[in-house]
Amino acid sequence: MDGALLKGKKGIIFGALNEKSIAWHVALRSWQHGAEIILTNSPVAVRMGTIGELAEKTGSKVIPADATSMEDIEKLIEESMDIFGGKFDFILHSIGMSPNVRKDIPYEQTNYPNMLKTFDISALSFHRILQTAYKYDAINEWGSVVALSYVAAQRTLTGYNDMGDAKALLESIARSFGYIYGRDRKVRINTISQSPTPTTAGSGVHGMESLLDFSDRMSPLGNATAEECADYCVVLFSNLTRKVTMQNLYHDGGFSSMGMSLKAIEQYKKSFEECP
Amino acid sequence: MDGALLKGKKGIIFGALNEKSIAWHVALRSWQHGAEIILTNSPVAVRMGTIGELAEKTGSKVIPADATSMEDIEKLIEESMDIFGGKFDFILHSIGMSPNVRKDIPYEQTNYPNMLKTFDISALSFHRILQTAYKYDAINEWGSVVALSYVAAQRTLTGYNDMGDAKALLESIARSFGYIYGRDRKVRINTISQSPTPTTAGSGVHGMESLLDFSDRMSPLGNATAEECADYCVVLFSNLTRKVTMQNLYHDGGFSSMGMSLKAIEQYKKSFEECP
Amino acid sequence: MDGALLKGKKGIIFGALNEKSIAWHVALRSWQHGAEIILTNSPVAVRMGTIGELAEKTGSKVIPADATSMEDIEKLIEESMDIFGGKFDFILHSIGMSPNVRKDIPYEQTNYPNMLKTFDISALSFHRILQTAYKYDAINEWGSVVALSYVAAQRTLTGYNDMGDAKALLESIARSFGYIYGRDRKVRINTISQSPTPTTAGSGVHGMESLLDFSDRMSPLGNATAEECADYCVVLFSNLTRKVTMQNLYHDGGFSSMGMSLKAIEQYKKSFEECP
Amino acid sequence: MDGALLKGKKGIIFGALNEKSIAWHVALRSWQHGAEIILTNSPVAVRMGTIGELAEKTGSKVIPADATSMEDIEKLIEESMDIFGGKFDFILHSIGMSPNVRKDIPYEQTNYPNMLKTFDISALSFHRILQTAYKYDAINEWGSVVALSYVAAQRTLTGYNDMGDAKALLESIARSFGYIYGRDRKVRINTISQSPTPTTAGSGVHGMESLLDFSDRMSPLGNATAEECADYCVVLFSNLTRKVTMQNLYHDGGFSSMGMSLKAIEQYKKSFEECP
Repeated sequence: MDGALLKGKKGIIFGALNEKSIAWHVALRSWQHGAEIILTNSPVAVRMGTIGELAEKTGSKVIPADATSMEDIEKLIEESMDIFGGKFDFILHSIGMSPNVRKDIPYEQTNYPNMLKTFDISALSFHRILQTAYKYDAINEWGSVVALSYVAAQRTLTGYNDMGDAKALLESIARSFGYIYGRDRKVRINTISQSPTPTTAGSGVHGMESLLDFSDRMSPLGNATAEECADYCVVLFSNLTRKVTMQNLYHDGGFSSMGMSLKAIEQYKKSFEECP
Repeated sequence: MDGALLKGKKGIIFGALNEKSIAWHVALRSWQHGAEIILTNSPVAVRMGTIGELAEKTGSKVIPADATSMEDIEKLIEESMDIFGGKFDFILHSIGMSPNVRKDIPYEQTNYPNMLKTFDISALSFHRILQTAYKYDAINEWGSVVALSYVAAQRTLTGYNDMGDAKALLESIARSFGYIYGRDRKVRINTISQSPTPTTAGSGVHGMESLLDFSDRMSPLGNATAEECADYCVVLFSNLTRKVTMQNLYHDGGFSSMGMSLKAIEQYKKSFEECP
Repeated sequence: MDGALLKGKKGIIFGALNEKSIAWHVALRSWQHGAEIILTNSPVAVRMGTIGELAEKTGSKVIPADATSMEDIEKLIEESMDIFGGKFDFILHSIGMSPNVRKDIPYEQTNYPNMLKTFDISALSFHRILQTAYKYDAINEWGSVVALSYVAAQRTLTGYNDMGDAKALLESIARSFGYIYGRDRKVRINTISQSPTPTTAGSGVHGMESLLDFSDRMSPLGNATAEECADYCVVLFSNLTRKVTMQNLYHDGGFSSMGMSLKAIEQYKKSFEECP
Repeated sequence: MDGALLKGKKGIIFGALNEKSIAWHVALRSWQHGAEIILTNSPVAVRMGTIGELAEKTGSKVIPADATSMEDIEKLIEESMDIFGGKFDFILHSIGMSPNVRKDIPYEQTNYPNMLKTFDISALSFHRILQTAYKYDAINEWGSVVALSYVAAQRTLTGYNDMGDAKALLESIARSFGYIYGRDRKVRINTISQSPTPTTAGSGVHGMESLLDFSDRMSPLGNATAEECADYCVVLFSNLTRKVTMQNLYHDGGFSSMGMSLKAIEQYKKSFEECP
């Protein structure tokens, strides 16, 4: 353990389903760094997952909330402020879902109500949380909000469907609201663009395995794990990053700055070899 | 006139309201470069604006269509193919509207149905057009699609509200669908990020005047006009830019690459001068 | 032919070695579009290549000049103004060479005099040309300057060595001088980031073949050719792009905006197949 | 103090001149976080500045070294490894100087030997340090190297002269060598793009005061201070950011993601007010 960076801090973690979830590890690491946390996820995810174990381990309360329901979010923020005895310090948003991906509807034949739902769940949920916390003046000065994103926001990946657009929207909301929160509340808002991570959510994307391999070989330090991502979140919640805001921060072993690595091109070359 | 870059080409222009509209000038210039065009806008915009004059001048048909209605878009594409006698070559998307901006609802108190409507009108409309044209196989090989954007997609501007997010989403859709259109149809899709332009649509943004002045002084070549933007669109519709796709192209006199210009800082300094 | 976009315009083309050179095609296309041109290259390149053929075809004069020699550049600009009878309208910079790449010295064991020479030839040469033309007030209002770059300026490619740094420097010089030229002379300066192209210069890079294949499969429209790049240059020299400046413009079939294409990942997957 | 993030770690800090220097604060904070450090600067800076005080306070050794001399850098690395008893963990590069800026030679009349010197001091020095440390295998696995940069690498600022190009080159070297260090040594390399900071080095830039004011009003969290930058460096040296590499990280209160803030535009508007 590297000190207790979040001693005395309080935060809400959205999106821990099970021990594969990045949010799970963020909750765990935040707690290990001294933070008091509240866990939340959609009612169905709370039932299907194992969030109870995490709550027990970290002595946290679980408050189910549908991130697309303003009522639920308001109740969540109110209850959290009751439990915390006032304002809190950080939020993690790790929420994403595309009905189009789930139902295997290709991007060029999209279903628009589904697409709006993708954006509502994966991006507007973030706005909803921020707007509610703003209304209740719920975040302490120099607080920090992080949402998890992916490089698909900048570069198109086959099969990633409308989730690329959802991440672009999410990152834009982080900037737009980051301006207002910075100006009015001295709170910072950033997104972390994480390596592809073999979570339950990610497993819906076609050809995930090859992509993980390619990404790992392209990244000089390899793909970043969920645990490493949790460390990076702790850093962004801590007092040591107070002037970082409205940024999309790549946490990807270098992938985003690579054109071609030796490892990846050597593997690629093998594809042209003929059998004897 | 610089040649006839669009001779024999056919295209649909969305978004000409009146002679201030960028789309108006794109239609005019495309026609001057030899293109056959069809004009379209929402039924209410067709009634309120002066698109009839433009149609007369360019010998074009006007087909009213609500860009949020799949039925309207399908009818538009079908009728266009009838008129053109088959496939066509280019599309301009110049559509944007935010009910939140119109009703002066600040970003931190947003109305979510409004916000979804902003995205539906300003960004999903682009997807809807592309999806329909894809379904009808309506665009010729090496055709070109352009949507108009603004730097607010990358950098937050006070008062620009949810239009910044809408433009980020629009640019992402251009990339996502650009991949599919490039791969399957050899058609390119790009966005032009245009200088702030004093159109009827732009006039809803608060403090537009100061922003126009600042932007003009920051840009080494000054703000780009609607006419100049039309020239750039012609270039992107022409055969001379066939391998440019999935790009957001700044047409802004250099603004996007400036940190601080002499002209802007000298003006800024004056704000600190005291009266004698 | 699409009109005569450069009728009455005059320009200097740097870097045509032989018919594989991008600059060769830019010269040819500019001439076909009505421009009067002057060709230049280093004395040794003039001797070794076939620039004479191009000169004959286009009725151009060849003026050998070492782009690292201020004296040579000054003489070139002076002679050009004599031949043109005054100011001219455009410049193409297509110059790049790395002694480290040539001598196979890896980046982590670089030879610093070589590295400075890489930068001097590949990037400062551009500054030298711009500074000289500025001093002689040699470029007409609304003139246009283009330098050729590569995505290695943003993303590291194994084996590309110090040329990635040289291209980053080149693009920065385009911005820095673009501000001054825009402000003082209404001249625009941009770089085109071109697909990897099998020129004589490019053939020094290791593993070029696999890279070309990967790049082609990743790009929805495939790699852009030298001829297509020439068309894009013509567009940037023309009157139709007057407010585009200080930009790095990707001309790469969409490569720069791709995270992963179906074609590339399917080829990559083959590398894991075992022989029966 | 937030824990002891650098306990047991050892590092070299380049560029502390006096208590205004960012490097000074990085050294201080690193030491407070438990690191053992060695200070270095050019012989003339060591004489002119007050680095001795810092050395005393932190119990560090000062080793003068000219960052443009391979011999000096080699001696520095050798001596450091002697003092540390082996490999070390982190490096801060905070070195920049432009003879052209100092002598007030404008960018469009640049002196090329000066310009090469700017690049040699401000950017190649970073390569030299990295190459030497690579050769001596001087950095521990999961070590971290940071260089300080500025937004001028992406956006041109009047008066910043060839330092913008130098920073672009510096950031490119961080990427190029970051790939090699990541692949071969599991060491990460990043740049921090810091708010304009009133250091002794920065004071050479014309109109610095207005720029600082504008930057502060544009940044929702205000300009970042040297102390805050030091905290961010500590985070990047720590074990909590192991998979962040080849990135340019903005530490600027949000400036880089702003198009226009309310505060800045309101100040700007005042410049048009007339005296009564």
